[in-house]
Amino acid sequence: MKPVLYGYFRSGTTYRVRAALNYKGVDYDYEPVDLAGGAQSGEAYKRLNPQGLVPALKVDGGVLTQSPAILEWMEETWPEPALLPHEPILRARTRAFCAAIGCDIHPIQNLRILKAVKAMKDSDPDAGTEWARHWITVGFEALEQMAEPDAGAGGFLFGTGPSLAEVYLMPQMFNAERFGVDLERFPKLVAANAAAQSVPEFAAAHPSRQPDAR
Amino acid sequence: MKPVLYGYFRSGTTYRVRAALNYKGVDYDYEPVDLAGGAQSGEAYKRLNPQGLVPALKVDGGVLTQSPAILEWMEETWPEPALLPHEPILRARTRAFCAAIGCDIHPIQNLRILKAVKAMKDSDPDAGTEWARHWITVGFEALEQMAEPDAGAGGFLFGTGPSLAEVYLMPQMFNAERFGVDLERFPKLVAANAAAQSVPEFAAAHPSRQPDAR
Repeated sequence: MKPVLYGYFRSGTTYRVRAALNYKGVDYDYEPVDLAGGAQSGEAYKRLNPQGLVPALKVDGGVLTQSPAILEWMEETWPEPALLPHEPILRARTRAFCAAIGCDIHPIQNLRILKAVKAMKDSDPDAGTEWARHWITVGFEALEQMAEPDAGAGGFLFGTGPSLAEVYLMPQMFNAERFGVDLERFPKLVAANAAAQSVPEFAAAHPSRQPDAR
Repeated sequence: MKPVLYGYFRSGTTYRVRAALNYKGVDYDYEPVDLAGGAQSGEAYKRLNPQGLVPALKVDGGVLTQSPAILEWMEETWPEPALLPHEPILRARTRAFCAAIGCDIHPIQNLRILKAVKAMKDSDPDAGTEWARHWITVGFEALEQMAEPDAGAGGFLFGTGPSLAEVYLMPQMFNAERFGVDLERFPKLVAANAAAQSVPEFAAAHPSRQPDAR
């Protein structure tokens, strides 16, 4: 069967999986899950993914959840074109860059956390944005230093071509812009994001180009 | 050279790496980084890891950071005994379980976030504990459903032996106990944690048994 991606146009974790599917040339169907309308907490979706989070990828044999696990499965299942370098240390540095976004930035500025922060600050409308901007900035300071100083041609972060590092970076840059993070402080990240957007398969994964975009 | 683990006895991410090193029978040196004293933010440590987070693993060729990346590197470098099942879907479900802890629970109840939450609640001494307990409980509700219903002998979560799922679960259960989470609601997680603690290499990784424990 053709894989089915359940996701939401503006979800950063869905954006990651879309970018990787496109880059690997996988033909897939897309089922939007309306996060704004709460569809992720409905019975139907929770049968698919008990965590009530997007994305989920339905494939032969089961439903895969959690974008880091989906991306590793994709790399093992469709190894070419590769999204991880072959050299072990560079591979580990690529994955560390991804984890610094996937564990230490993205989940802290997720919708459910921003709602909780806003509730703590007596519904101050700016509380969520300030919180998100702060933690993205802290995370980007580390990422800017982790960005491979000896990256090859094309301006990509690790090695000579696009990797999971760009797959994770693009959605986080998109969020950083939404929350008004001062990106001038992070020239390496800005350059890597520009290099990533020049890859047509990655550009096609942008939230604004999805069928459920609004 | 012998690998050197930089970590802290009570750090959950260090605990993960310790458990995996022990299980794979790797001979390593341990360099405590005193998180309570702020050593992770000192110049010396930040030269090693610009993120200022533990753990870091110094190996031939470089310094590895971010526990998810370190654990994948270990699995590729020292494949036996394996900490991931061989069957692709089961492998993805194991990694999804790990990511549900590593992305959606652990970083939300990390020391730096608890400090920020406490500051928002006018230094209310219980604010951090309540926040941590809430998000661990939300996460455990999903994990309890993700726990493999057809796990093999020994009570492990995925397949017939210990895996990265237990490596991630043990430290999170340790934190859940510290924050007073009601664990009676999560019988599968409690059983899997007990199975994990019965593995001598995992038991030796417990925070209370480290040289910097206090």
